[in-house]
Amino acid sequence: MKYGIVIFPTKAVQDEANSYRKRYDPHYALIPPHITLKEAFEADGDQLEEVVTELKHIANETEPFKININKVSTFAPVTNTIYFKIEPIKELNDLYKKMHSGTFSENQEYAFVPHITIAQKLSHDEYSDIFGSMKMKDIQIEDTVDRFQLMYQLDNGSWTVHDSFVFGKEFV
Amino acid sequence: MKYGIVIFPTKAVQDEANSYRKRYDPHYALIPPHITLKEAFEADGDQLEEVVTELKHIANETEPFKININKVSTFAPVTNTIYFKIEPIKELNDLYKKMHSGTFSENQEYAFVPHITIAQKLSHDEYSDIFGSMKMKDIQIEDTVDRFQLMYQLDNGSWTVHDSFVFGKEFV
Repeated sequence: MKYGIVIFPTKAVQDEANSYRKRYDPHYALIPPHITLKEAFEADGDQLEEVVTELKHIANETEPFKININKVSTFAPVTNTIYFKIEPIKELNDLYKKMHSGTFSENQEYAFVPHITIAQKLSHDEYSDIFGSMKMKDIQIEDTVDRFQLMYQLDNGSWTVHDSFVFGKEFV
Repeated sequence: MKYGIVIFPTKAVQDEANSYRKRYDPHYALIPPHITLKEAFEADGDQLEEVVTELKHIANETEPFKININKVSTFAPVTNTIYFKIEPIKELNDLYKKMHSGTFSENQEYAFVPHITIAQKLSHDEYSDIFGSMKMKDIQIEDTVDRFQLMYQLDNGSWTVHDSFVFGKEFV
C-alpha cells in the first residue's frame, strides 16, 4: 500500500488555498491542502507498524512551532506548479530529515522546499497568466503546526488518513 | 467550526464503496467512504479540547472489533440514500451512545443505523434502477475496526481529519 506524510495547515489556510486549487489544481478533490513531509512510499503490515512507532517518537520529540507564508512561488521551469512558499525553518527540516533516514526510505526526489501547492499541471499560457497575477499578491499568513498525518492512497488516487501524530501527545 | 466523527473502513472496502460513489454520490470528493458515528456538530477551542480528551478515553475503553456487511439497503422513502448495511453490533452502538451523552451534544436526528453510503441525492428513476440492481448483489464483507477519526469541515464542504483515535493506544 502507498503511504505519505503531510501537515494540514489550519482551516483558514486550507480555505484560502482551496479558493485557488478549485480552479487550478486537478488534485483538488484528492486530498486537502497540505505540506508534504514525505512523498508516497510503499509499506506492508510489518513495516507500517515500525513506521507508526517511529512517527510517534518523532512527534513526541517535537514542540509545536510557527510557520510563515509570505509569497507565492513556483517550481518552473522544472514543473509549472505554483505554491504558497513556507519560510524555511529548522523545525520543518528536522521533521523532514527524520522521515528520510533510519527506519524510513530515502525516497526524496528533490531538495526539501516546504510548500502548499495551489496550482499544477497547467498549460504554459494558463501558468503564465496565473503566476503573473499571483506573484503580485500581498500574502502574510502565520500558522501553528502541532501535528502531522500518515495517509494512504486509494485506487482512485485520493488519500485517507491512517493516523494523526500530535506533538508531545503520543503513547508509545 | 463544524466537526464530525467517523470510522474509515479498510482500503479494500473504501475502494469497493468508491466504485459506486464515483457515479452515484455527489459527496464522493468531499470525504472518503465512512461510517458516521456522530453527525456534524459545532465546537469552539475549549469545547474541542474537552471533546478530544473524552474521545481518547472512549478509544482507550474500546477493543478492536469486527464488522460485517451482507447487504445493500436504503433509507427510502425518507431519503433515497443507498448504503452498505453494517450488521448491528453492541460495539458500534456503545461508541455511538458515548458520543451522544455527557460532554457530547445529543445531535442525533434519526435512530442509529450503521452504514456506508454508496449513493444519494438521486432522481427517483435513477434510484429505482440502481437500487433494483444493487439489492440483488451478493455482498460479503468482513472488516476490522480499531480506530475512529475526528474531522472538521472546510468552506467547500470537504472534510479534513483533525485527529485519529486508536483503540487502547491513546495518551490522556
